[in-house]
Amino acid sequence: MKFCSHCGHGVSLRIPEGDNLPRFICDHCGTIHYQNPNIVTGCLPVYEDKILLCKRAIEPRHGYWTLPAGFMENQETLEQAAMRESAEEAYANVEIEQLYTVFSLPHVNQVYIMFRARLLDENFKPGIESLEVKLFSEDEIPWDDLAFRTIHYTLKYFFEDRKKDQYTMRSHRVEPAPK
Amino acid sequence: MKFCSHCGHGVSLRIPEGDNLPRFICDHCGTIHYQNPNIVTGCLPVYEDKILLCKRAIEPRHGYWTLPAGFMENQETLEQAAMRESAEEAYANVEIEQLYTVFSLPHVNQVYIMFRARLLDENFKPGIESLEVKLFSEDEIPWDDLAFRTIHYTLKYFFEDRKKDQYTMRSHRVEPAPK
Repeated sequence: MKFCSHCGHGVSLRIPEGDNLPRFICDHCGTIHYQNPNIVTGCLPVYEDKILLCKRAIEPRHGYWTLPAGFMENQETLEQAAMRESAEEAYANVEIEQLYTVFSLPHVNQVYIMFRARLLDENFKPGIESLEVKLFSEDEIPWDDLAFRTIHYTLKYFFEDRKKDQYTMRSHRVEPAPK
Repeated sequence: MKFCSHCGHGVSLRIPEGDNLPRFICDHCGTIHYQNPNIVTGCLPVYEDKILLCKRAIEPRHGYWTLPAGFMENQETLEQAAMRESAEEAYANVEIEQLYTVFSLPHVNQVYIMFRARLLDENFKPGIESLEVKLFSEDEIPWDDLAFRTIHYTLKYFFEDRKKDQYTMRSHRVEPAPK
């Protein structure tokens, strides 16, 4: 950030009075521009004993598999955002069942919020951001070709919990993937 | 938003290619400026049979009671943010126990994420954003003078769950308060 989005003059990075962190402040109109983490939300769509995954047609992680998920938009709820992402990425009709995983990723200023969901029918197909969408049973999951650690954790917890038939919400920090 | 924070030229609101929502786009450098919901996080600090509340010294809702909570910052986890807010607003030393309530507030583009926490000692005092901080037993809670509906719900669920000695995570939409 170099310029004030309100008046177009230059900004400088300094600590506002009464605050304790540096913020971008407009040198002309005084507007303080806060920068905060973004929410990525999506779901784990279950159909019979299978899970719907999407092969990414976009960067980052082009060609890797993921659960339908993306940035939450203004003016929607988490559940609406998770359903919208499922529709956009996989034309998937899902029913949201349970808030299931909540991950903090401070290295990229993101919070992931994933739901368990029921996939309502087989009328799915790739959306513009997917190369392919497909149902996978547990032993078919492409563990080495998953796009993100958050997706790996969500799938791992799901299969653990399914064996016990008891689904427990998980919340923890996720570190960057080793290079 | 009127000006590009990257180059200082004017922006216009239009739908980028491949997108389906209007965004502020720079007419000069083409940068797309996304606007997304913010996370408010905090906790419900429990000490023996009492809850720590803070009387707000700032707008909105100056003079009303709240749980320690505020905007999550970049480069921190949810749990760190909830602890930081408790320290800032009430000098409270808390141990985070459970992710407890998750609320979508699409009318203000916020997601509230509140934890149950253990208040570790009685060395609390008002921070700069609080007029007063105080422990309340269930029958002392100032229900009519709570600052926000999200706080009301979190306290209500806590007292319901405490009677059963079983704390269940809640997630739902919260509508604007009636005028």
